[in-house]
Order: sequence, then C-alpha cells, then structure tokens
Amino acid sequence: MSKLINRQFQLASRPAGEPEVANFKLVETAVADLTDGQVLLRNHYLSLDPYMRWRMNDAKSYAAPQALNEVMVGGTVGEVVASKNPLFKVGDTVRGGGGWQLYRLFGAAQLGLLQKVDTARIPMSAYLGAVGMPGVTAWYGLVKIIHPKAGETVVVSAASGAVGSVVGQLAKVRGARVVGIAGGAEKCRYVVDELGFDACIDHKAHPDLKSLLQALKQACPAGIDGHFENVGGMILDAVMQLANPFSRIAVCGMISGYNGEPIPMAAPQLILVNRMKIEGFIVSEHMEFWPEALQELGEGVASGQIKYRETVAQGLDAAPEAFLGLLKGKNFGKQLVKLV
Amino acid sequence: MSKLINRQFQLASRPAGEPEVANFKLVETAVADLTDGQVLLRNHYLSLDPYMRWRMNDAKSYAAPQALNEVMVGGTVGEVVASKNPLFKVGDTVRGGGGWQLYRLFGAAQLGLLQKVDTARIPMSAYLGAVGMPGVTAWYGLVKIIHPKAGETVVVSAASGAVGSVVGQLAKVRGARVVGIAGGAEKCRYVVDELGFDACIDHKAHPDLKSLLQALKQACPAGIDGHFENVGGMILDAVMQLANPFSRIAVCGMISGYNGEPIPMAAPQLILVNRMKIEGFIVSEHMEFWPEALQELGEGVASGQIKYRETVAQGLDAAPEAFLGLLKGKNFGKQLVKLV
Repeated sequence: MSKLINRQFQLASRPAGEPEVANFKLVETAVADLTDGQVLLRNHYLSLDPYMRWRMNDAKSYAAPQALNEVMVGGTVGEVVASKNPLFKVGDTVRGGGGWQLYRLFGAAQLGLLQKVDTARIPMSAYLGAVGMPGVTAWYGLVKIIHPKAGETVVVSAASGAVGSVVGQLAKVRGARVVGIAGGAEKCRYVVDELGFDACIDHKAHPDLKSLLQALKQACPAGIDGHFENVGGMILDAVMQLANPFSRIAVCGMISGYNGEPIPMAAPQLILVNRMKIEGFIVSEHMEFWPEALQELGEGVASGQIKYRETVAQGLDAAPEAFLGLLKGKNFGKQLVKLV
Repeated sequence: MSKLINRQFQLASRPAGEPEVANFKLVETAVADLTDGQVLLRNHYLSLDPYMRWRMNDAKSYAAPQALNEVMVGGTVGEVVASKNPLFKVGDTVRGGGGWQLYRLFGAAQLGLLQKVDTARIPMSAYLGAVGMPGVTAWYGLVKIIHPKAGETVVVSAASGAVGSVVGQLAKVRGARVVGIAGGAEKCRYVVDELGFDACIDHKAHPDLKSLLQALKQACPAGIDGHFENVGGMILDAVMQLANPFSRIAVCGMISGYNGEPIPMAAPQLILVNRMKIEGFIVSEHMEFWPEALQELGEGVASGQIKYRETVAQGLDAAPEAFLGLLKGKNFGKQLVKLV
C-alpha cells in the first residue's frame, strides 16, 4: 500500500468561555505501516456531540479531559481499508471511536472499540445517531430513569437533536404525551409534524422564565411526569415548576452551562415538595443495556418508525465550524462530518 | 364522665417570613360526649416537627396547608381515657395524630390513625421520635435511597436532631463512615461522643461556603457517597462539591428555605458530572416499609444501641415558643411538649 496521509484536528488550546476555531489545529502525518494484529479504519462519518465541549475544559468530570496536542476524540463510522487481524477484513463497515481525522490505526488491544455494522437496512450514518450512542442515550434515560407510563406527560429539551428526537419518539410508542422544547419555529414544526410529538415550544420565542413557563403550562395541562434534560438552566427551572408528584428527570446534558456560565437551579425545594427523582447518567457506563436498546432502535430505523434528520458538513476541514455551530444550535438533527 | 375541657392551639394567621407566637391562638372548648364507635385520646406528648412550618404556608405541597382557625396538626402519643369502640379500651397507650391539644375525639372512620404501642421496653415518648415518624424517615431515606455500602461516606445535616441522629446511627451499623453537620460545638460533641459518628462539623463555625467546604473536605477524605439532607442551601452546595460518582442524596427537608428565602442549588451540573441521584421523599407515602423499619428501630432503642435525646417543653402553653425554637435549632434532639 502506498503511503497514506492522515489529517487530524488536535486540541490546540482550552477555550476561555465560548470555544473558537483557533482552539483546534490541523495536523498532517503519514499513516504508519500496519504491524501484526492491527486494523486501519478509514472514517467515513465523524459524529459531533455536545459532550466534546465539556471535555475541552480541564475540569473534573466523568471522563478525562481531552488532551492538548492530541487528536480530538470522537465517534466515527467507516471502512476497514487494511487489516493484519483475522477479526476484521478489508471492506468491513465498522463503528468506532475514530476521532476527528481521516484514518485511525487500531492495535489488537483496541479492537473492542470497533463493532461491525450492517448497512443493508440501516444507513451507515445512522450508526452515529439514532442507532448509535445518541439513540442509546435517549433510550436509557427514557426507559431506565423516566420510565413513562401511558398517559403521562414527558418533556424533552433539544427536542429536534440527535438524542431528543429519539426520546420523544420512544416516549410516544409508550403512550406518553410528549412535549418538545427546541430553538426556532422550523425545528418545532419538524418535531410535531414529522416526529409526531404532541407539542413543541420554541424557547427562542420565550426568552424569559415567565413566558416559557406559560407556554409549557399550556402544552402540559396535566403537569409534567418525566423530563429528559439536555440543556439545563431556565428550561430546567420551568419544568420543575410544573413537575407532578413522583416525577422523574433524567439529566443527560446541561449545555447551557458548558462554557462556564453559572446555571443555578432556582428552587431545589421542589425536589421535596414533589418527591422528585433527578438522576444524571452517562450512557457508556451502562453497556449492559446497549443490546436491548440497539435492538429497538435498529428495528425502528429500519422500519421507518423512528425518523431522524442529519446536518452533514463536508470534509474534515469543516469540522471545527460545524462543532461550534452545534453548540449554538445551528444544526438540525444529528450533526455529522462527511470525510470521504 | 364529668365535662372535660379541651385546650388547643389553632393557626390564627399565616406567617410572612419567620413565624411568630401571634400566628397561633389558644382556644378552649368542652369535649363532646362520646357516641358509638368513638374513642377519646388524652395526649401525653406532642411532637413538634419542621414539616409543620411548611404547612403553615398556603403553598402547593405534598399535603394540604394547615387550615386557618383549626387545630394545628401534629403527632401525639397518649392514653385512651374513654371508649365506645371495642378495638380500644380505657388505659390503652396509643400513638396517633392528636394535634396541638389536650384531647382528641376519634370517630370510627379515623381509628386507622391510632396504633397501640407497648411501653414495657420502649418509653412512650420514643414513639414520637426514634421509634416513630422521625425514625422511619431516617430509615427510609438511608436504606431505600442512599443505600450505603460498607466503607462509603455518608453525610447527614441536622445531625443531632430526631431524624439525623438516627440516620447516622443506622449508617454506622451498615459500616459507613458517618459525618454529621450540626449547629454548635455541644451538638457536635454529642453526635461524635454519644452517637458514635466519625466526625461532626459545626456549621455555625463555618458560616461561608468556602470554610464549610474546607471542613467537610477534611472530614470526608474519600469524598461523599451518600447525603441525607434536612437543611438545603449552602450545606447542599458544599456536599455536592465533594460528591463522588454515583452518589445519592435523599432530600428529607430543606428547612433553610421554609420561611421563603430563595435557596438555589449553585451547581446542578454536578448531578451529571457525578451521575448523582437526588430524590425527595415523604415517609407517609411509603407505609409498606414502616413495619420493617419499626422493627429495627424498636429493637435498637430497646437494646440501647440506638440512642436519642429529647428536649421537652412543659405544658401546652409552651408549644408555640418551643416550635419557634425548633425552627432556629434551639432544641437538642427530639422536640416534644409534655401535656400531662
């Protein structure tokens, strides 16, 4: 094989507040020749996810911070283009943590990161979205924490996103009334008209707590029994004001605070008043549920019951801008970067 | 039976902020003659509890607000002094919701509120404390929500109080390291020397978050795995800063906010960072666990393994002042009013 050139984005510096393109740097290196046991993955799609913003900080968290001057961590799906390992052959389509780069070499000890995926009924890119980590995240928070009963009301923030869109559709299947919160009229229309949510609130049209609360109250006449939180801040405060007794909040993300802004919870006494359960989770710590979740998600996507939308940036060079756009909600649905 | 005179405290007005003696009024009435099926309870001890402050507000909560111009609701233990019901006979010692008054007449439909109690091995007053609602509250929050494993660190606020003192002793039996938070050096000494906690922090000596956090850090070198919250506010913020992954917080009370002060939670993103579970509960909604809890608590008190302390105000007239003192932490252990 002639020498391949890898191109990758590394974290050049940690952001002070809002991240910018200058926090990333593009580095080119030759791909090394394979040694025994190694597999070379050519990334076709890179997944961009809000959690990456968090890892750019040098803060105590559930995962080690993204290292400076190393390739940005990220989920990818792609094709095996060289293999010296009997478990993978050239042409296999695999999902794995390929990072913000064109190629990744996996040693024998890292092959657990790769799963072969079947693209006969499910598009390759869906394995980074509804049939991947975001989908399982939605499934776990909804099924294992919120556990909605038919007739209950479930709210989800970032409702048109990769996670939120799946939360709502899974909740509908379970007989819940589902109310989304999203940024912009177009996203809200999509959430209701295409995804089948019962209602969706445009938080941009309700920039203060009083107004948001009023809209949420109208959309949730029987109060809120479950909430899937991706945003935090004012949205969480408004939801808590309408929380029913024994309501459950699955805390998946608090993107409103990722740049370091304080996002206090205004009235934690409501946890007691309403005997609420609030639980944070990270889907990678619940691997035992992935098979069950992926079964439902894969079937749903293959049959067309679970719908999703993607925003695809073209080419590795576009990754930093696409990522910054994601953090501002400029994407619509799952944000991907197409690398081939 | 000659006419008995009942004396009772009613709620005269709702407090604006801190409650005062003028919010209560003393009313005298004759006790009515018993009709068939009725039982007359003479209250020996009245229990004063923080939840009563909350019910004085006219706010949405888990229980209806205390009605104006009606007898203050409250747990009591006492003696049946007249009965026209075969289930109870004169001389029976019973626990029940007798209220802030000398006598209460129970109709046949209300007899579920009364339980006969055995005072051979357990003092009557303990049925309002360690072997009563406060004890079961401690048991439920610790066993069913915090669920401590041996070697874990459990923190409890209001540690010398009726609930907190039992939380810590039950946690010690389960092999946890137990750290109390209490108001004043004397209470802290008691918590460590008599109750056997591993450490206790005097929050009066640490009036700001930084100082409290520093003291808590020293007392919890391996972080905090479980927290039993009776207070809220700054204490909750400090605990959350030291929370370990997968830590659990049982929210039993937030007395720091009962007068209407805002008590925001400073950093709810820690719920996600540390994959915490925070759950509010009301012990009366978990009656199915009372027998199991009372079994352990009764044995513990009878054998002397579970220790407790009481502050006993003398006579019904002393109830309002004693209650206001409780809200300011002037009591030491379980606050009672002796009525006979």
